[in-house]
Amino acid sequence: MALIAPRTPPGTMELLPSKQIAFQRMLDTIRRGYERFGFLQIETPVFETVDVLLTKSGGETEKQIYFVQSTGALEQAKRPDIALRFDLTVPTARYVAEHEHDLSFPFRRYQIQRVYRGERAQKGRYREFYQCDIDVIGKDSLSVAYDAEMPAVIYTVFRDLAQVGIDVGPFQINLSNRKILRGFLEGLNLSEGEAQAAVLREIDKLPKVGVDAVRTTLTGEQALSAEMADAILAFVGIDGTTDEMLAKAKDLGSASALAQEGLGELTQVVAGLRALGVPDTHFRVNFSITRGLDYYTGTVYETFLTDFPQMGSVCSGGRYDNLASQYTKSKLPGVGISIGATRLFYVLDQAGLVKDQTSTIDVLVTQFAPELLPDYLTLAGELRSAGLNVEVHLEPAKIAKQMKYADRAGIPMVLMMGPDEAAAGTVTVKRLASGEQATVARADLAGHLLAAFGRAR
Amino acid sequence: MALIAPRTPPGTMELLPSKQIAFQRMLDTIRRGYERFGFLQIETPVFETVDVLLTKSGGETEKQIYFVQSTGALEQAKRPDIALRFDLTVPTARYVAEHEHDLSFPFRRYQIQRVYRGERAQKGRYREFYQCDIDVIGKDSLSVAYDAEMPAVIYTVFRDLAQVGIDVGPFQINLSNRKILRGFLEGLNLSEGEAQAAVLREIDKLPKVGVDAVRTTLTGEQALSAEMADAILAFVGIDGTTDEMLAKAKDLGSASALAQEGLGELTQVVAGLRALGVPDTHFRVNFSITRGLDYYTGTVYETFLTDFPQMGSVCSGGRYDNLASQYTKSKLPGVGISIGATRLFYVLDQAGLVKDQTSTIDVLVTQFAPELLPDYLTLAGELRSAGLNVEVHLEPAKIAKQMKYADRAGIPMVLMMGPDEAAAGTVTVKRLASGEQATVARADLAGHLLAAFGRAR
Repeated sequence: MALIAPRTPPGTMELLPSKQIAFQRMLDTIRRGYERFGFLQIETPVFETVDVLLTKSGGETEKQIYFVQSTGALEQAKRPDIALRFDLTVPTARYVAEHEHDLSFPFRRYQIQRVYRGERAQKGRYREFYQCDIDVIGKDSLSVAYDAEMPAVIYTVFRDLAQVGIDVGPFQINLSNRKILRGFLEGLNLSEGEAQAAVLREIDKLPKVGVDAVRTTLTGEQALSAEMADAILAFVGIDGTTDEMLAKAKDLGSASALAQEGLGELTQVVAGLRALGVPDTHFRVNFSITRGLDYYTGTVYETFLTDFPQMGSVCSGGRYDNLASQYTKSKLPGVGISIGATRLFYVLDQAGLVKDQTSTIDVLVTQFAPELLPDYLTLAGELRSAGLNVEVHLEPAKIAKQMKYADRAGIPMVLMMGPDEAAAGTVTVKRLASGEQATVARADLAGHLLAAFGRAR
Repeated sequence: MALIAPRTPPGTMELLPSKQIAFQRMLDTIRRGYERFGFLQIETPVFETVDVLLTKSGGETEKQIYFVQSTGALEQAKRPDIALRFDLTVPTARYVAEHEHDLSFPFRRYQIQRVYRGERAQKGRYREFYQCDIDVIGKDSLSVAYDAEMPAVIYTVFRDLAQVGIDVGPFQINLSNRKILRGFLEGLNLSEGEAQAAVLREIDKLPKVGVDAVRTTLTGEQALSAEMADAILAFVGIDGTTDEMLAKAKDLGSASALAQEGLGELTQVVAGLRALGVPDTHFRVNFSITRGLDYYTGTVYETFLTDFPQMGSVCSGGRYDNLASQYTKSKLPGVGISIGATRLFYVLDQAGLVKDQTSTIDVLVTQFAPELLPDYLTLAGELRSAGLNVEVHLEPAKIAKQMKYADRAGIPMVLMMGPDEAAAGTVTVKRLASGEQATVARADLAGHLLAAFGRAR
């Protein structure tokens, strides 16, 4: 039989075990952070029925859908009736609308699952990637207090990632509120929806193309006066401490009630962030943050890694007025934020910032003497009962080869028990990193190892 | 705009948060059990390229494939080039063959992901479901010692599930070795491959159709003599204690070297299981276990829940000679076992055996006085730093309503801090289940709560 070349499908991230351990620790840290703040997990199927999935989109999104068909349907050349989710927002909207009467509102959900985009494959662009979302969804109304919680969660998660050997380095969560810039534009008599949206889209490009290019487009294509373009650029360029910026914007935006409303909300969010213990170094008001999507109506977030400006925002989100208007008449306002874990991991790993991980295996019990295998199995069982992760080297091999295996696999501790030790009721414990070796009574072994790992019994 | 009816795609399991907590605890328990025994996680993409996925199959499997196509490919009516995985074995075979030179053998992997079958939707049959697999894959050879480890892991996992409120009740792992029955048939001069396979398939039906129906088929369709049919049925019906059964089979199968080889292996597996601490009550030799798949060549496992015989095996697997012959010339023998978590959860939940879960949220900080909200946020931050999962009720509401919310959500502890308490530096702690209430100094609060939950600081 001819061999088929085994190959990972393009546009996906598949990891060897040592990297998989690091990636899983990243997801676990995100999950733990989300649960710390009282978010509840949901999971939805990987596919949705096509009519449910494609209500809103059209345009770019629809070109990137992955449709799913069973063998039978394909043979009959039917139109597919299910498709893979392209984000977690649409499935969550469907979930909340479908289960509305069984949920308590405000509904605080987190969802950590993969999403799919039928993109052309290229380096660093994924067809399959993890999104890690939190959202709080209210019924009819939702206090702006929730808007402060989102960046506090993200701050906690990013800070804690360093503790599992994934160091994102310095980062800053940028905050604004769409009402502020929209209100400011209204104050300049730029009230018409499409004209406003066009300006917001240009502002969104600022970090990529720079001030001069944006000014050229605003005064050229968009036919604004030079004064107006300058006023807009001055507004989005407001700088200083957080409190100075809020004061300046209050001043410059005094003509608009909407801008004042947005500034009031943003001021509340800043106060909430401080009460939640997020230091001023890790967030920043930034009036040029607009988020392209019309979906957002109030607070908006983008997060930048100081050492990776070219990555753009690694964690974005905001406040929306109505989550699920396509599925239910109930008004469901909410606020949410999302980490794109696959791309974040890829970039950090490429930059060498994912540290070598110790294995999930704590201890290797070597097979010192094959006739003692039943003893090794019993010993391993004792240690597992104490909460340790233990592999027994079940394949007979030279002890040096077994040591080398443990070392390559990142297993921190190795046990040896020969016939003499078995008779004496002792075990030799070796810490591979230091070469340190100790003889420990078998009755004390679990306690000894747990103490060496700094874990409670 | 007309509303689209929000609905979960048929054939999938989607859970409300309280059940999702239970299900996630089940998956976490399985994962912890797998890691306790030193298995390493891998994850593979949800889809594989079609040629990689469909090398072996043909027949039933191929009818149940879900093919995946991007919008563009669909419009051009191309043949799909990717499809959703239907199990975790094929992706693992592809993974091991592809990354062969980067892996250490024996390679111990676990994989907990969803798989897809394009089945007709019906109650309790899933198109999307979790499989939780462990396998050890050797290069060229793999000691039979590994065959004892699989059921020991499953024993540990099933036992531990009761600790997270998911009680599978009494269960028994059934063991055999395909060499034994095949050898016994050879001893009866039934050596031809297809004839043997046909007998094995009939034996596999025993629990469903009964001895008489199998005898009828063996002597009818399969044209065996009555003596031969009786000898086969007597052999697979061997009963007694484990050691008695092994002795009887040794006797009856004395004509076949292959049967003796299989019995030798099975005897080793039984000894290994005992050394690993699995009590004789929880496993059982059963010579009628054949596993339909030709894939298996030695040890085979099936696991039955005593209270749910109609479920059939909830956890099956076995030893195979060569994992990935379609992708590599290397010989990769292995042994593995798999839990179908979605169906298991569904059946246990239907039977009322999934206990009501406490929330992942430990504590609700109520909003007693809205002007104290910043204090509540700071208080929550203190508790989170100590490792507690804390929700702050950010939406102002009557305190009775907040209590009711916590109660319905299964949050065990509620905190109240009014202006007097804030001034005095105390907090009122209420345990909802008992109604017990205590006033605790804020400085002692985290320690008080952790102690109440029986957790270490």
